[in-house]
Amino acid sequence: MRHFPSCQVLNIRDNLYMVDCGEGAQVQFRRMRLKFSRLNHIFISHLHGDHCFGLPGLLSTMALHGITGSVTVHTFQEGVEQFKRFMDFFCPVTPFELRFNAILPEQGIVYEDNGITVSTIPLSHRVPATGFLFAEKQKLRHIVPEAVSRWCVPHHFMNSLRQGADFVTPEGLTIPNAELTKAPDPSHSYAYCSDTSYSKRVIKAVEGVDWLYHESTYAEDNAPLARKRGHSTAREAATVAHEAGVRHLILGHYSKRYHDNSILLKEAQDIFPNTMLSDEGRIFDLNKE
Amino acid sequence: MRHFPSCQVLNIRDNLYMVDCGEGAQVQFRRMRLKFSRLNHIFISHLHGDHCFGLPGLLSTMALHGITGSVTVHTFQEGVEQFKRFMDFFCPVTPFELRFNAILPEQGIVYEDNGITVSTIPLSHRVPATGFLFAEKQKLRHIVPEAVSRWCVPHHFMNSLRQGADFVTPEGLTIPNAELTKAPDPSHSYAYCSDTSYSKRVIKAVEGVDWLYHESTYAEDNAPLARKRGHSTAREAATVAHEAGVRHLILGHYSKRYHDNSILLKEAQDIFPNTMLSDEGRIFDLNKE
Repeated sequence: MRHFPSCQVLNIRDNLYMVDCGEGAQVQFRRMRLKFSRLNHIFISHLHGDHCFGLPGLLSTMALHGITGSVTVHTFQEGVEQFKRFMDFFCPVTPFELRFNAILPEQGIVYEDNGITVSTIPLSHRVPATGFLFAEKQKLRHIVPEAVSRWCVPHHFMNSLRQGADFVTPEGLTIPNAELTKAPDPSHSYAYCSDTSYSKRVIKAVEGVDWLYHESTYAEDNAPLARKRGHSTAREAATVAHEAGVRHLILGHYSKRYHDNSILLKEAQDIFPNTMLSDEGRIFDLNKE
Repeated sequence: MRHFPSCQVLNIRDNLYMVDCGEGAQVQFRRMRLKFSRLNHIFISHLHGDHCFGLPGLLSTMALHGITGSVTVHTFQEGVEQFKRFMDFFCPVTPFELRFNAILPEQGIVYEDNGITVSTIPLSHRVPATGFLFAEKQKLRHIVPEAVSRWCVPHHFMNSLRQGADFVTPEGLTIPNAELTKAPDPSHSYAYCSDTSYSKRVIKAVEGVDWLYHESTYAEDNAPLARKRGHSTAREAATVAHEAGVRHLILGHYSKRYHDNSILLKEAQDIFPNTMLSDEGRIFDLNKE
């Protein structure tokens, strides 16, 4: 077995968000020296074992480590029932509050905080399945120190400035925000789409995202099998990326029949050059590229 | 995380018997190039996650691989209920017959075939727990070809000879079995004891076995913690081996606080020199030593 089952962790300003939790997720999580204490949300795309069988072990280990606060598992109602019952038996007491949030594939926003929204992406698989779109909210504008000194903007107004307000001087003169601030850092978006066959609805949902992870279980040699089993070829993943106008594409969820995944990369890059292969432990810096 | 959770596989004449099935068992099983088709029995010592959370993944992967025949999981009634319900949802159809055998810690024999018996060993842990004693039945005696030729023993009598019967010639002369056969190969026994604190009942149950696996979670520096948490120190494991008069001792189930398990080995060998450390992927040949 070359690959672990599916699990990804997004680090957004030191908050960790896990997407899918295949068997062995806790092992990889610790190998990569990630901190359990920063993990408060786990999103499950669908209820196949290779996407969620690591959940009981991960949660039990977090309990053993004395993690406090709360951990919320976002999954379909049937998954809530299965995992709740399983955990109630095997790990009835956790130092953190274990919450389950029942979601629907077509729900839209399933989670929101000050910095991000997480929305569902309806996928097309053999069982109900959803992708997740992580979108950073617009960030605060940067203060231009010389400009705010020149106009004597009071300290208590800085937050309003960062949010885009114009400043009115005591004399009644309006200073446009653009004179006092610079544009905020860009807000990134990341879409996770696995497992799914090629789908126009997915294209619509991921339109213009910065980073798209799209499964590519098979190469073109197995296109009929991909369709039959609700999966995609690398070429189909690249077509989604191209048609949705995303900036970067990451492939993954490779069938074990490919001993060298470079065939998948090549087939995808023919259509969408800015494609990369995910792999165990590989880190992508969404700010850098 | 240095160690995978508990899982062992006994190979007895190419039949594989798994004892405990911690998360990642299927990964290790395949890494060691063992054959799913030879695995028909899985024994679970107790219902803590680090001894059984690999079960759903292993069974699902066996189903994906099209394994036929039957697979029996031997575990306590509550485990039968939990895993049956979980598998009914996540993997309702398997090409093999999935059986559950509800066992009790004091049951005695839980499995028997032509070659072996598997019996429970009542352990002393925080929850009900049982070890397992694998005992090969007495093997068939070896025919001495020259002797059977000399006495013209007919072919149909060979099986009786192998089982120890004397031969009576047509003239009524009794030839003692010992003249016609040689002693059978030795029958081995292997006892698996995890998780448990030091226990006189365990000593009694494993008396005289060839190979004893006994947990040694802690060194002497944590003896009070061992007692509190229902575990053993390496010295206690060695004491069990010594008092039970076993031939070989294998340690395991090490606390992650020990970065170097040689301290456990040393403390055990002070009492029982023929001690070895188990480790991920390590193979012990029970015939050789």
